[in-house]
Amino acid sequence: MNCDIIITNGLIKTPGNPNPSPDDPGYVIIRDTKIFATGLMAELPAEITAAKTIDASGCLVMPGLINTHNHCAMTLFRGLADDLPLMTWLQDHIFPAEAKFVSSKMVYWCTKLAAVEMIMSGTTTVADSYFFESDVAKALKEAGIRAVAAQGVIDFPAPGVPDPADNIDNAAWYIEKWQGDDLITPAVFCHSPYTCSGETIQKGKELARSSGCHFFIHVAETKSEVEQSLKQHGVSPVQYLNQLGVLDEETVCVHCVWLDDNDIEILNKSGAGVASCSKSNMKLASGVAPLDKLVEAGIPVGLGTDGCASNNNLDMFGEITTAAKLHKVNRLDPTLLTAGTVFKMATTGGAKILGLQGKIGELVVGKLADIIIVDMQKPHLTPTYDVNSMLVYSASGSDVKTSIINGRLVMENYHLLTIDPDEVLAKVNEMAKLVRSAPSPEQSPG
Amino acid sequence: MNCDIIITNGLIKTPGNPNPSPDDPGYVIIRDTKIFATGLMAELPAEITAAKTIDASGCLVMPGLINTHNHCAMTLFRGLADDLPLMTWLQDHIFPAEAKFVSSKMVYWCTKLAAVEMIMSGTTTVADSYFFESDVAKALKEAGIRAVAAQGVIDFPAPGVPDPADNIDNAAWYIEKWQGDDLITPAVFCHSPYTCSGETIQKGKELARSSGCHFFIHVAETKSEVEQSLKQHGVSPVQYLNQLGVLDEETVCVHCVWLDDNDIEILNKSGAGVASCSKSNMKLASGVAPLDKLVEAGIPVGLGTDGCASNNNLDMFGEITTAAKLHKVNRLDPTLLTAGTVFKMATTGGAKILGLQGKIGELVVGKLADIIIVDMQKPHLTPTYDVNSMLVYSASGSDVKTSIINGRLVMENYHLLTIDPDEVLAKVNEMAKLVRSAPSPEQSPG
Repeated sequence: MNCDIIITNGLIKTPGNPNPSPDDPGYVIIRDTKIFATGLMAELPAEITAAKTIDASGCLVMPGLINTHNHCAMTLFRGLADDLPLMTWLQDHIFPAEAKFVSSKMVYWCTKLAAVEMIMSGTTTVADSYFFESDVAKALKEAGIRAVAAQGVIDFPAPGVPDPADNIDNAAWYIEKWQGDDLITPAVFCHSPYTCSGETIQKGKELARSSGCHFFIHVAETKSEVEQSLKQHGVSPVQYLNQLGVLDEETVCVHCVWLDDNDIEILNKSGAGVASCSKSNMKLASGVAPLDKLVEAGIPVGLGTDGCASNNNLDMFGEITTAAKLHKVNRLDPTLLTAGTVFKMATTGGAKILGLQGKIGELVVGKLADIIIVDMQKPHLTPTYDVNSMLVYSASGSDVKTSIINGRLVMENYHLLTIDPDEVLAKVNEMAKLVRSAPSPEQSPG
Repeated sequence: MNCDIIITNGLIKTPGNPNPSPDDPGYVIIRDTKIFATGLMAELPAEITAAKTIDASGCLVMPGLINTHNHCAMTLFRGLADDLPLMTWLQDHIFPAEAKFVSSKMVYWCTKLAAVEMIMSGTTTVADSYFFESDVAKALKEAGIRAVAAQGVIDFPAPGVPDPADNIDNAAWYIEKWQGDDLITPAVFCHSPYTCSGETIQKGKELARSSGCHFFIHVAETKSEVEQSLKQHGVSPVQYLNQLGVLDEETVCVHCVWLDDNDIEILNKSGAGVASCSKSNMKLASGVAPLDKLVEAGIPVGLGTDGCASNNNLDMFGEITTAAKLHKVNRLDPTLLTAGTVFKMATTGGAKILGLQGKIGELVVGKLADIIIVDMQKPHLTPTYDVNSMLVYSASGSDVKTSIINGRLVMENYHLLTIDPDEVLAKVNEMAKLVRSAPSPEQSPG
């Protein structure tokens, strides 16, 4: 029996054994793109031969993490502007920087940087929402990371779409180009209910529906957004989207910080998923999403880092630990959002909202082989009594040693195999020099 | 001119140049235990010779971080019990585990594990509060980390102090033993106003005063503690301590989550410092300390990890980023606790509350050489526009490459020079086996 990769001697985290014991090391066999078999080392079939063997002694073998919201190319703006009032940050810093520096080339290289960072910290699938999305897709494909990559649609001149009248056609062109790819799933991203007209949102969703794609939209991120929606439309952003008819199981509502009980009921009935970004919501002081209520209602929830301008890193382990702790302190209840619950959000929850349930998110025979190996022989992971606790409260992205995506080894023993990180860093640093030397808003004549 | 260590080609973060540019690399010269000189490479005196040269090209050279609250030995209980109601966690898990497993030997080895973790993540000074404190001091001294180590005092039978009547004498013995050490500063830790009588607290503070030591106490950590204090003493915990006469510049009030304006005024007048532990307060759902108000009032604030049972790691970078973001979202104000402000809390703020201002916390000629070197050539730290932003919002402890404490190189290029981490991990894992096999509270006959 030939297979492609066999991982041996690791603690194998499966749905049936979420807290594997060091006394019972196991194996995972990968054939082509899929998980072919898992089990205990003591029961490893003798007739197995593999092109590649990875010894995972002292390591945890687990599903890769799923980042359900990112604007990958914004790595260029990491730390460009912090600690500012939201509108100053957005209008005086981020929007001008985007207008000036976002190009096809910038998106390609800065998305590659995001891919380097994500693979090195244990993410195997990312949902991206930005512009020049075909360049995003190209960069992520080359890096070997799985992605749901959504082309941005907005009612203003945008990078790559100078005339907003072209935004839907542009998205349609992009979807057609990438549909059918084994790693990249194209999608549509209408920026928000306050930057897209109702008509644009409906057209965007229509395109997504007719192409069998997912639809992403920022919703109810800030209190002022909700107030504005009430004033303009007489209803909350969630109710407004519901009235537009765009909420269904293929829609991902990003943020969902300010929801009332009625909004939660609407989301629940619609089947829409929520991508929650705790760190970004904290840093921008947007608020705390009612994740406990969403979970209780049975609404599918995934976690996301958001872009680097508002986080400022792409480590999903940071997102997991923050989600677990933020909701506890917010409601003064230490039993909320247990380690097991947030771990699921970062794996099966993410898979579900991205329409990839059944394909990724768990180490189960027949699912795609998106697997990471975490080195548990670290001082800060010693001792480990419970694997979920270790992952959520002690570990960080830098503990991820090896990564396999779609059956392909993309990082081995901390060494990237699909990208030359030095080249990527050099390219982005070159662009950052231009950003650094651009006049700051205070100095600019305007 | 001979010196001991020269660090070359780094970005040198000094009070006068908090955001050093890669275009102006500099040097730091160390003689004996102190910083002898700093400057730009272009101006490096030609006549300098050093026993050891460290090339910090592409790295940030900065003051080591100061962890102002830890129970180091509790690494053994990392992740033993999470996501539980506070009293269940404490009374059914942590207290029984401490009663059963805390010994002189356990404290020594588990503190060594904490030292490994802390040095590897950039901490150069720690304030510890536990029992068997002489073993804590011995372990930290051998590891080469600077510490203010406070012997625990509590009105219950405690590890190493079976008869509470001996608690002050025991602390006095410990202080005498360690006073005058160049790395370890002994201190007194009365556990809290609800576990120590007023008399015990006053005796503890008296001992600290007469020995010229610092005094630590947990204060106002939970809402129920404040309610209990109001019921029992008619005043808040801070007011109660003030009435006992134990608040002064040599007192560190740990947590201070539930403070009213009157408490803040009392703290401010007293000169007492606050050690704030955001991650622990989040995980245990204790609440959010009013750090912005403390800063505004001019009260000295340091940051701490708390022990591993409630965090569950000792990475001060995690503490910094959490403090910055938690207070923003708590007050819905993104301008609160800027990167620069929390960086100071983790360095000069910590030094101040521990009585080490003027000695550590800044790269200044004449101060003790407690220095860390952060590798900035990492994907998640690229690009860097502002060093404080990078440290607070993007970096983690695993980016710390080299550490010097008291002029001694303790970690070089990620390799520990003072401790054998494998030996420490093996010892702690051995003890953890016993913890793992102990009957859980549900199974125990009681």
